[in-house]
Amino acid sequence: MDLSLYVIIDRRMMNGRSPIRVAREAIAGGATAIQLREKEMESRDLCHLASSLKKVARKKKALFIVNDRIDIAQAVDADGVHLGQEDFPIEIARKLLGRNKIIGATVRNLSQALKAQREGADYVSLGPIFSTKTKKDLPPPRGLKTIAQIKEKIRLPLIAIGGINRDNVASVIRAGADGVAAASAVVGAKNIRKTTGELLRQIKEVKRLKRRN
Amino acid sequence: MDLSLYVIIDRRMMNGRSPIRVAREAIAGGATAIQLREKEMESRDLCHLASSLKKVARKKKALFIVNDRIDIAQAVDADGVHLGQEDFPIEIARKLLGRNKIIGATVRNLSQALKAQREGADYVSLGPIFSTKTKKDLPPPRGLKTIAQIKEKIRLPLIAIGGINRDNVASVIRAGADGVAAASAVVGAKNIRKTTGELLRQIKEVKRLKRRN
Repeated sequence: MDLSLYVIIDRRMMNGRSPIRVAREAIAGGATAIQLREKEMESRDLCHLASSLKKVARKKKALFIVNDRIDIAQAVDADGVHLGQEDFPIEIARKLLGRNKIIGATVRNLSQALKAQREGADYVSLGPIFSTKTKKDLPPPRGLKTIAQIKEKIRLPLIAIGGINRDNVASVIRAGADGVAAASAVVGAKNIRKTTGELLRQIKEVKRLKRRN
Repeated sequence: MDLSLYVIIDRRMMNGRSPIRVAREAIAGGATAIQLREKEMESRDLCHLASSLKKVARKKKALFIVNDRIDIAQAVDADGVHLGQEDFPIEIARKLLGRNKIIGATVRNLSQALKAQREGADYVSLGPIFSTKTKKDLPPPRGLKTIAQIKEKIRLPLIAIGGINRDNVASVIRAGADGVAAASAVVGAKNIRKTTGELLRQIKEVKRLKRRN
């Protein structure tokens, strides 16, 4: 399960470009996982979109994760679901999806991270690390220190999210994150493939240096 | 499977009353099935609400159906799902829910009814029979004749929906419907229990007379 660069496919930040085109560019640039985050679309259309995105991801052996909607994930046989704090409880998702699917959880602090681990999540996504305009009603930025503090106490892979871009991505991996999730920084970029490639290059470089030490 | 009086629990028409209280009153009045129709709520809250509504229904052996959300239906072990034309395809729902769950489909005409039957639906809901303000973007009212025309060509139970109230419910059953679905006429009523009881009384009376002839 390579979560090094996890790109969130969210229509609201794509400047009108098609989700499939955006996903294709992100995958071509090296995204190791994509997540479909879509709360507005009717189920029938969402099913079609998810099915197309899964094909795009599978071609390059990237993971395909669906935000919140367990039924959509099941319908297209996605690799798993990602659950926010207001989405399904982890136990229910596990019961419906079985042991072979990936379940990720958004966490804001150590206690939520420990709870997600206890409840059977496969990875946690911690954020917002930096300030971001992508989502409203978010708590204040957690900062880089929280990454190390939480990473020390859990055994699950931790990905960092929120305001991560080419200027700070190296610091996030250095702080201990196993990967980063990006939404607007990638899917809102002018050149998606190039931006993804640049982020991935930095992530790999820091990981390489960490392994050496 | 008794679909004689199928009440749609839709928050938008309840004048601020709680869905659980509304459902309890409808069930006390004799509703034989309730459907949770809710497109706005976060999954976690929706899960809790569905779980409570299922308990309310089960106490009186009424059916509990979830609109569109297969995952919510599975999470609370509902009796089935109801699918509009923009919701999941019937085949996908059947694959995920198995043979023992009820799948209902909204249909607007004979060809959609035949398609739903072919794809494995357990009942169809035809509408709008009369004009209604409950939903926007609906096609023109189908009228009573369509009920008989479709009923003649399909073997599935047919329930009628759209603008049905105490003044026209008898005519709908007389025209051939196996039951009626009501949203605002019941959940928007001042006295929900009394309104449900009155509708059910008329439905039973017409069914009784039909059996005699």
